[in-house]
Amino acid sequence: MALTKKPVTGMRDIMPEEMEIRDYVIGVIKETYRSFGFHSIETPCVENIENLTSKQGGDNEKLIFKTLKRGEKLNLETAKEENDLVDGGLRYDLTVPLVRYFSNNENNLPAPFKALQVGNVWRADRPQKGRYRQFMQCDIDILGEATNLAEIELILATSTTLGKLGFSDFQIRINDRRILKAMAAYSGFPEDSYDSVFITLDKMDKIGLEGVEAELLEKGFGKESVDKYLGLFKGIEDAEDGLSYLIDTLGSFLEEAVSTSLKEIIASVQATRSAKFELVFDPTLVRGMSYYTGTIFEIAMPQLGIACGGGGRYDKMVGKFTGKDVPACGFSIGFERIILLLMENGYQIPARKEKVAFLLEKGLSGSVLCDVIGQAQKLRSENKQVLLVHMNKNKKFQKEQLTEQGYADIREFYKEALKQ
Amino acid sequence: MALTKKPVTGMRDIMPEEMEIRDYVIGVIKETYRSFGFHSIETPCVENIENLTSKQGGDNEKLIFKTLKRGEKLNLETAKEENDLVDGGLRYDLTVPLVRYFSNNENNLPAPFKALQVGNVWRADRPQKGRYRQFMQCDIDILGEATNLAEIELILATSTTLGKLGFSDFQIRINDRRILKAMAAYSGFPEDSYDSVFITLDKMDKIGLEGVEAELLEKGFGKESVDKYLGLFKGIEDAEDGLSYLIDTLGSFLEEAVSTSLKEIIASVQATRSAKFELVFDPTLVRGMSYYTGTIFEIAMPQLGIACGGGGRYDKMVGKFTGKDVPACGFSIGFERIILLLMENGYQIPARKEKVAFLLEKGLSGSVLCDVIGQAQKLRSENKQVLLVHMNKNKKFQKEQLTEQGYADIREFYKEALKQ
Repeated sequence: MALTKKPVTGMRDIMPEEMEIRDYVIGVIKETYRSFGFHSIETPCVENIENLTSKQGGDNEKLIFKTLKRGEKLNLETAKEENDLVDGGLRYDLTVPLVRYFSNNENNLPAPFKALQVGNVWRADRPQKGRYRQFMQCDIDILGEATNLAEIELILATSTTLGKLGFSDFQIRINDRRILKAMAAYSGFPEDSYDSVFITLDKMDKIGLEGVEAELLEKGFGKESVDKYLGLFKGIEDAEDGLSYLIDTLGSFLEEAVSTSLKEIIASVQATRSAKFELVFDPTLVRGMSYYTGTIFEIAMPQLGIACGGGGRYDKMVGKFTGKDVPACGFSIGFERIILLLMENGYQIPARKEKVAFLLEKGLSGSVLCDVIGQAQKLRSENKQVLLVHMNKNKKFQKEQLTEQGYADIREFYKEALKQ
Repeated sequence: MALTKKPVTGMRDIMPEEMEIRDYVIGVIKETYRSFGFHSIETPCVENIENLTSKQGGDNEKLIFKTLKRGEKLNLETAKEENDLVDGGLRYDLTVPLVRYFSNNENNLPAPFKALQVGNVWRADRPQKGRYRQFMQCDIDILGEATNLAEIELILATSTTLGKLGFSDFQIRINDRRILKAMAAYSGFPEDSYDSVFITLDKMDKIGLEGVEAELLEKGFGKESVDKYLGLFKGIEDAEDGLSYLIDTLGSFLEEAVSTSLKEIIASVQATRSAKFELVFDPTLVRGMSYYTGTIFEIAMPQLGIACGGGGRYDKMVGKFTGKDVPACGFSIGFERIILLLMENGYQIPARKEKVAFLLEKGLSGSVLCDVIGQAQKLRSENKQVLLVHMNKNKKFQKEQLTEQGYADIREFYKEALKQ
């Protein structure tokens, strides 16, 4: 019986050229984050289905690959709905598993806990170009740090990593959910409609100020509120220091601690960053996930129209597991987009091993073979990459192919040493 | 609602101390195998359910975590059996996915293709100590190499990796399915009962020669065959060169090419190995997987009663997908067992970064904070690991804990620079 050669729908095989870059990038990520004191951790790819459907994941909860119960627990006859059939699911992000991990192991972890996760996640999205149902995420999180030291370290660590991978001239945009709320309150929007306002605001990049104005009016919000709201954004744009203008204008609508902290994050990062990038206040930054409670941030690459990573503070999620809130803040690199960018730009891994190919005549054996392998072993111990292959009939073509694969040094070995 | 803190049944959270070792070991594995010309690849963790239930996986096929169909494809009312509900499953090994990958991408891969895979696999085994339902496998395979160059390279690469991780004085035992069969044929066992004979032989380690004899007789095999069979093993043990004795005795029951090739593998590896280990012929080595067609091998660590990795030649599996056989040979390191051994022996990662901890007085902010972070950034750029944490009330205890975590250099920073 012939089997299916293709990967399952929406997932993909990764080819050697891409894997070489992925392995290298993961190495740089782990190495750099470690220098900031982050600890690598790992959780199972399968999570209890209740944890994945607890409303922490928003729309991702609709996209779960669920795993069937096994053995006696599976009863087709009494099963009335999908949930009677399953007991687990593939994780759709690394945040829910991290919070579960932290709750489960808190007593054995340093405080605050700085976690690094690099791992696959799964979402049964409609298949489309460049978007896969299995993809890698790369998250750092600090749990138990209430001050902005968390934000500063997360942004420095992430930007340093990107710098080491050769990225420059990118922006990290920052905002705070509490500023978003203060702006909506100042404008007089009803409190229960803030989320609707933010959903429209989130489109600013695409539809511009007029588009946002039109959509808000269309949604039935009062003209006075909409005018006041848009006036804030215009004011920020016109001001020399947009953040200071906003703070002055919002007055008592915004807690002073929030603005002081945000200014400190920006100043500290700008003063101590090691990569070439800018950390900028962006009042239009919303970020979708409902679990954010404070700062939010996002990476914008000049080459990309879309975000290339992001994160924020989520102080209320650990409490969902333990009943006791723990301050938490995280930053996720858009791993797959980074890889795509590097591949598109023909990225070359620095300090690659020198590649040597040994072409062996067919039938070469015994003590001659031993000697050839010994030579290869010696080169390998000198940190070279050595490939042993048999000669093809078309040796010229074979050597061309090897050269294309980066083997600059090709040596030939024959059965009778004389022929060498 | 409080959620489940524990990982799903049979799987586990990996703590930072273990992850540090795992990350390091994976680095050494990838680096070493690369120096032998192996290419890192990756396949999706989910495979088409047909591919996982094609009888290539033996008993593992009973242990599959199956994934539920989604959307309209899932119909509870018309579903009569389990297989109507599922369309995918989590891979139970890396070999079936590799063969699918090779069949799918053969035209874009070098020939022969040397693949390296490090990835998780899942088996719904009965939970027991030290055995988990998600675990990591680490396989190298050579596809398209018919000669024993494949075996030699696989064994050298694997043993070199183990040597770099500090293992020595281990054995790699080698045998050939064709020798197993020749021994059974020589003894006069009926051809259709070879597998039953091998299942008994596989217990030699535990029950000894007498035990094997008793079980074979109990199974109803003729006394003459059993005597002849056991005579072979005794003869091998008594001979100075067991393999040569066996070859002489089996005569025309064993193809000469098989024994010549095996002798060459042993001689070449013994002459060129870079780790301190022995490659030895073991006529009692069986290995369970039914897909092996030629050589088989297994790693035996002096510290462990069980195998710590193994592999062999499986020339008939690619044909199952493509209809055209391709010679194939693979070697899998027992990754989880290696990690367990290293952890138990208190393994220390070589050339670790120097660890520095900065203790910050609570409330330290503004330009003083900027300055402290700047100092941390400088040390990080000098390849040090720097942790920034706020001072606890019990500073003495905090410093003790940091020392325990390996922070030899602990510096304190206060709000007013004077206090420094």
